[in-house]
Amino acid sequence: MKVGFIGLGQMGSGMAGRLLTAEHALTVFNRSPEKMQPLVSCGARAAKSMRDFTDAEVVVSMLADDSSVEHVTFSDDGLLKNLPAGAIHVSCSTISVALSARLATAHAGAGQHYVSCPVFGRPDAAAAGKLFLVAAGLPNVIDRLRPIFDAVGQRTFVVAEQQEKANLVKLSGNFLIAAVIESLGEAMALVEKGGIDRHSYLDILTSSLFNIPLYKNYGSLIADRNFTPPGFSSSLGQKDIRLTLTAAEALSVPLPFASILRDRFIALAAQGGETQDWSAIGSLAAQDAGLA
Amino acid sequence: MKVGFIGLGQMGSGMAGRLLTAEHALTVFNRSPEKMQPLVSCGARAAKSMRDFTDAEVVVSMLADDSSVEHVTFSDDGLLKNLPAGAIHVSCSTISVALSARLATAHAGAGQHYVSCPVFGRPDAAAAGKLFLVAAGLPNVIDRLRPIFDAVGQRTFVVAEQQEKANLVKLSGNFLIAAVIESLGEAMALVEKGGIDRHSYLDILTSSLFNIPLYKNYGSLIADRNFTPPGFSSSLGQKDIRLTLTAAEALSVPLPFASILRDRFIALAAQGGETQDWSAIGSLAAQDAGLA
Amino acid sequence: MKVGFIGLGQMGSGMAGRLLTAEHALTVFNRSPEKMQPLVSCGARAAKSMRDFTDAEVVVSMLADDSSVEHVTFSDDGLLKNLPAGAIHVSCSTISVALSARLATAHAGAGQHYVSCPVFGRPDAAAAGKLFLVAAGLPNVIDRLRPIFDAVGQRTFVVAEQQEKANLVKLSGNFLIAAVIESLGEAMALVEKGGIDRHSYLDILTSSLFNIPLYKNYGSLIADRNFTPPGFSSSLGQKDIRLTLTAAEALSVPLPFASILRDRFIALAAQGGETQDWSAIGSLAAQDAGLA
Amino acid sequence: MKVGFIGLGQMGSGMAGRLLTAEHALTVFNRSPEKMQPLVSCGARAAKSMRDFTDAEVVVSMLADDSSVEHVTFSDDGLLKNLPAGAIHVSCSTISVALSARLATAHAGAGQHYVSCPVFGRPDAAAAGKLFLVAAGLPNVIDRLRPIFDAVGQRTFVVAEQQEKANLVKLSGNFLIAAVIESLGEAMALVEKGGIDRHSYLDILTSSLFNIPLYKNYGSLIADRNFTPPGFSSSLGQKDIRLTLTAAEALSVPLPFASILRDRFIALAAQGGETQDWSAIGSLAAQDAGLA
Repeated sequence: MKVGFIGLGQMGSGMAGRLLTAEHALTVFNRSPEKMQPLVSCGARAAKSMRDFTDAEVVVSMLADDSSVEHVTFSDDGLLKNLPAGAIHVSCSTISVALSARLATAHAGAGQHYVSCPVFGRPDAAAAGKLFLVAAGLPNVIDRLRPIFDAVGQRTFVVAEQQEKANLVKLSGNFLIAAVIESLGEAMALVEKGGIDRHSYLDILTSSLFNIPLYKNYGSLIADRNFTPPGFSSSLGQKDIRLTLTAAEALSVPLPFASILRDRFIALAAQGGETQDWSAIGSLAAQDAGLA
Repeated sequence: MKVGFIGLGQMGSGMAGRLLTAEHALTVFNRSPEKMQPLVSCGARAAKSMRDFTDAEVVVSMLADDSSVEHVTFSDDGLLKNLPAGAIHVSCSTISVALSARLATAHAGAGQHYVSCPVFGRPDAAAAGKLFLVAAGLPNVIDRLRPIFDAVGQRTFVVAEQQEKANLVKLSGNFLIAAVIESLGEAMALVEKGGIDRHSYLDILTSSLFNIPLYKNYGSLIADRNFTPPGFSSSLGQKDIRLTLTAAEALSVPLPFASILRDRFIALAAQGGETQDWSAIGSLAAQDAGLA
Repeated sequence: MKVGFIGLGQMGSGMAGRLLTAEHALTVFNRSPEKMQPLVSCGARAAKSMRDFTDAEVVVSMLADDSSVEHVTFSDDGLLKNLPAGAIHVSCSTISVALSARLATAHAGAGQHYVSCPVFGRPDAAAAGKLFLVAAGLPNVIDRLRPIFDAVGQRTFVVAEQQEKANLVKLSGNFLIAAVIESLGEAMALVEKGGIDRHSYLDILTSSLFNIPLYKNYGSLIADRNFTPPGFSSSLGQKDIRLTLTAAEALSVPLPFASILRDRFIALAAQGGETQDWSAIGSLAAQDAGLA
Repeated sequence: MKVGFIGLGQMGSGMAGRLLTAEHALTVFNRSPEKMQPLVSCGARAAKSMRDFTDAEVVVSMLADDSSVEHVTFSDDGLLKNLPAGAIHVSCSTISVALSARLATAHAGAGQHYVSCPVFGRPDAAAAGKLFLVAAGLPNVIDRLRPIFDAVGQRTFVVAEQQEKANLVKLSGNFLIAAVIESLGEAMALVEKGGIDRHSYLDILTSSLFNIPLYKNYGSLIADRNFTPPGFSSSLGQKDIRLTLTAAEALSVPLPFASILRDRFIALAAQGGETQDWSAIGSLAAQDAGLA
């Protein structure tokens, strides 16, 4: 398949690499061109702009936020103007429910297809093709994407035809992960102040009821107080909780845990922690408790 | 070993049954005597009071709350007066950090030993000898208890000599479980109001990042709105969060998630839900969102 | 002075009436034209569009939200295109800090002046010229507005040259009022469930430490469970807390009380309360406590 | 009237002084005897213990917490054993609802009377006889206390016969005050980070909608960052919120604002602020926002 890929950050580079490995004809685009080099040296073509996607069958975008996706899609030389009729834009970015709905309408209006397909997993999972994909779109369009999904993910969950629902699932999932981080941060602050070593404590948790990588990995980061370099930055985590709360307000769903998380990310930002890993909010309970 | 067992609720009955199976000489006591019958018919002796424990080597207590443990220990015909010197009181109940410290002092003053050993697991795990045990006490005393621990648990974590630390770990663990329940309740309310089936949603979660019984079991209870009969009652959950917050205040550790949980349990009690399973707090986000 | 007035809701009608009484030459505009009638019958001229403001010295706008103010200002026949150079747009609406900053830039670019002047007070205060005004803008421009301010307000506080700061003060003030409502709601739920009449309780409060109309008026609405018709609707209150939280996030200020208020307004909306007075959030604590 | 007074802290000294001025025959008691000196030099008699109250008609106690009141009442040489039949114990301390109920039962059992009469006001109001009193007890007993009430307070609110209800009103009132402190702290942090001087801001608030000493005084303390010496210590404020939450849990009333306040006091204690004025929690929002 002729595949385009936009956005070669930590996640996108890994995903694009998997597509190359799966022998798709890959054209990549990134705003900072130097990031295209490693993929080009493995056989990808480097696009100069969206105008190089006029013969693509599928373009996957994996960008940081709404405004990047808006630019790539709606700008004068964006996907809407350049993708051929019948081509598919697969948006893997974690964006707002509202933007996803807008993309669905716009691409349909341009005779193109739009599939929303946010992913779960950190950069190492992206590079290993082990992401979990949450897809929403027309069934026959999704069927055409199976080779793509299989190349980048270990499993794809199709949740709905209505594309924005995949984004809601993704946001709610990031909320759940952030809730794990915060709850671990609070529990560790409590036991540490009670005289218990936080690594030993984490070992008890993850050897018994909480025996999954999620608790092990984030628990270790918190116990180690090791938040740089980020696997997923706090500013992106803050953005995701913001988008979760915005979606929740639009649907009239109060989310008290999410409100706490919001304040945590803001407090972390206020002390300059935006570039730390988002698990750094898991150190704030200890800080409030007067621990180093 | 001559073992006494006090408290034959859902958890205690299963644990005592495991001790019988392991061929310990078991004497059981329960306030409501009819609950002793099944164990007696399997070979246990029924005690009439704590006075029947004067020759016990170990007495295990598994009771609902601080006041029950206080009564069993400090009352005129309680363990302090009746256990022989050198015998061990193993408290498996989820009690306050403060009471655990008080038990340690009192038993030591009476020439007896005290080991704190709260457990993780629901009634089915107790009956199957699959509990996780968190033990604290003098190492040589804990060593003597290995046959007991092996009979009732799949693994024992020894956290400290100071007995109350095991209780802090247990309380923090129940806090973490309650946080899982609440976060699932919020996430499900959000996606359900966004038009996504909550069972399908749970399946995505537990097939990907949240692939452990904890999320599966509590997630199912919440998705099914199935809170009776309780595996662990809401009133006990409320008690545990109260004890967690009390311990946290004594240690000067603010716990914002725990405060939210406290309000959830109180709101559930206000609508008569004390006898539901504690996962019923996971339905309150949906209720606040105007879902049935 | 030749004054235009846009937006004849409950607040705007009262304010415009005061300007007429003060013998300003008043031209009014409202999207629903029938609301202009009472003022026209008192001597105001009715505008058909912003194009009727081409000779105005001052135009005051008092609208419900950001999108209304954006429309009135930036649309093709909006103020930017129609106000003469040197004229002043006085925005009294409770709008976002970000929009206020944008208005400042846009009007300056068009050779016009912009003064931000949100107000405190409910419709009865507007009709009586008893509002409190919070103004920000260039000092010499503000000086020219004194006759306007004196006609509609009992006192004007000039907070800064930078216009958006007045909006921040206004939003923070509405947050403070909402916090009073919520705190009264919680306190009344507590004492009522403890067997104390809530009207007697309110009388104690407002006869002692809380002896101001704010506590009396909102306390009465809560004690009476009387939330319709609204003096200020819950949907507007929700909007103001949203704008407060947005401004706070932009400034990296965590506001835990505001987060609680956010959830309250969302819960109220989920049960269909958007058109009630915003003091209706003061009934939610009672509801959570199982009171009627 | 023969009046005894127990507890000569900042509040009690002022109140006892007022009783002397009103020409009551006053016997005072304080654990640290040196605090009795100023009152003795004005004509009071110094008691050596509760045994000096065997001929008192009324004994007023004004102590720091439950345990002090328990000691004074229930200890071997306490009021229960020493007050004559028919005498009245007036408890002005801010104590738990549960202890107040227990005092009512105990004094009734001893043929004595018990009136609960917590007060609102800071030390200066106590010294000036300007307290607000919230009384509960039997009407004919309360009638006998009018001269006492008139000497120490500017107004007495009789809320119920059941004594503990006065304590619930008092606790809820302290909750409301703490909510004012927190809301001012959040609002000031927000506007300060937005570039507005916090003293000017407070002036706007207290010249308009929030024109009462409560907002002025606490607002000034927060704006001045001036928390020592305390008028009312943070550890006492923390105690009062704890008692409020305990009463609320017993009545099944969720109080989200009170939960936030609880975490604030704990965080303040964790940084060593227990001896600051309780308004110091009003500086924590600024701290979380990264302001000095």
